[in-house]
Amino acid sequence: MRTFKVTLEYDGTDFAGYQYQVGLRTVQGELENALGKVLGRSVRCSVAGRTDAGVHALGQVVAFRADTSIPLDRMCAALNSVLPKDMAAVRAEAVGADFHPRFSAKWRTYLYLILNRREPSALWRRYSYHVPGRLDVAAMQRGASYLEGVHDFTSWANDLREAGSPVRHMRRCKVRRHGEFVIVLVQANALLKGMVRNIVGTLVEVGAGKRDADEIPAITAAKRRSSAGPCAPAQGLCLLRVEYEGQEQ
Amino acid sequence: MRTFKVTLEYDGTDFAGYQYQVGLRTVQGELENALGKVLGRSVRCSVAGRTDAGVHALGQVVAFRADTSIPLDRMCAALNSVLPKDMAAVRAEAVGADFHPRFSAKWRTYLYLILNRREPSALWRRYSYHVPGRLDVAAMQRGASYLEGVHDFTSWANDLREAGSPVRHMRRCKVRRHGEFVIVLVQANALLKGMVRNIVGTLVEVGAGKRDADEIPAITAAKRRSSAGPCAPAQGLCLLRVEYEGQEQ
Repeated sequence: MRTFKVTLEYDGTDFAGYQYQVGLRTVQGELENALGKVLGRSVRCSVAGRTDAGVHALGQVVAFRADTSIPLDRMCAALNSVLPKDMAAVRAEAVGADFHPRFSAKWRTYLYLILNRREPSALWRRYSYHVPGRLDVAAMQRGASYLEGVHDFTSWANDLREAGSPVRHMRRCKVRRHGEFVIVLVQANALLKGMVRNIVGTLVEVGAGKRDADEIPAITAAKRRSSAGPCAPAQGLCLLRVEYEGQEQ
Repeated sequence: MRTFKVTLEYDGTDFAGYQYQVGLRTVQGELENALGKVLGRSVRCSVAGRTDAGVHALGQVVAFRADTSIPLDRMCAALNSVLPKDMAAVRAEAVGADFHPRFSAKWRTYLYLILNRREPSALWRRYSYHVPGRLDVAAMQRGASYLEGVHDFTSWANDLREAGSPVRHMRRCKVRRHGEFVIVLVQANALLKGMVRNIVGTLVEVGAGKRDADEIPAITAAKRRSSAGPCAPAQGLCLLRVEYEGQEQ
């Protein structure tokens, strides 16, 4: 029995999120179905972060245990031969039996892509949030800086039921303009449900001049979801990478 | 009666190409349908380049004549309110009645995106050509350089019936690596049918070591389609921009 760590890319557009749900097309459902074909028996996967419906991933991490003759360097090819085209296994590693993609993870990095130009885009519509009015990126960055550090992120979460403590260590919260795009990069030890999208929705209000950047500490201190701004749409969000011990970036 | 020049973006995935065809979903069909709704009467568009099925555009140029009260700076918004989401009008200009997007064009620039890594991509699958084996970009660039200048491109065309002369001025043919991507950029006064994709298909053979870069001049000299390599798939190709007199880049 070996434990496999697999890095997964997916286009979230046509999925009802990561987690298995009866009768819906989910990433976990398609993945476990593909693993069943490749390994010849049903396998349950654990995952680093259960992304919501419509959210993309370039570096989701899953793990499973299997007794298989497939060589490690053929695992991705074997999976990709049966996975749907909106999913791809991009890396497979052998790890110790104590590895858990969720509990062993040290840092998770999410990227949120805002298309900030007047007209919408046909090519980026599936992977970005269109904000027509010019955003003040310096104000957004000032607001974002208040979120770095260790805080109780209750105000920024949609649901705390499965969260345990609402305290998270936000290592980086950066806002940058790249031509027509504004990119929000969030790196934290873990994230609460809806946290990145609630932060982005609020920072967009700051960038649009509807809210002051210096309100952010008070929003956090309120520990009330209603004190923050709206949840930004799912299609702009992408789980970029998950880092583990001994793999610092 | 005014003449409008509109810059158009589209995701070619779900179109049977630009040009109108009975019973098929085409860019021209959807565009003229949207113009009919916006202008209240049927309008025929002229176009810079009739892209093939599956080919994308970030800067296609179309033109039409209309007698309308819609202000110029509302034309894109009016069109985008009725266009399907895989098309977007990104710029509208008033031009002289003698403007023709095809005949007035000076330079056309196409970008071809190759994903050059072992595993496929879920997020880039609609917009790139996956080549798993490592490509020798220096060899591809050497081959591409032979195509710059004024040549008879008969060997590189799928169909010359509507082309007039097969001589074209290739101003730039560049191959660059950007991380996991290899980008082929082609700028010419005009392009023959299938020309960029045949060039890319042949350059990929060069990059894979199946063909020598120094064969390119002989391929061109042969004036025979069969002397060149295969046609690269449509989804990697994107019409980036069309330039007109007094708008040098």
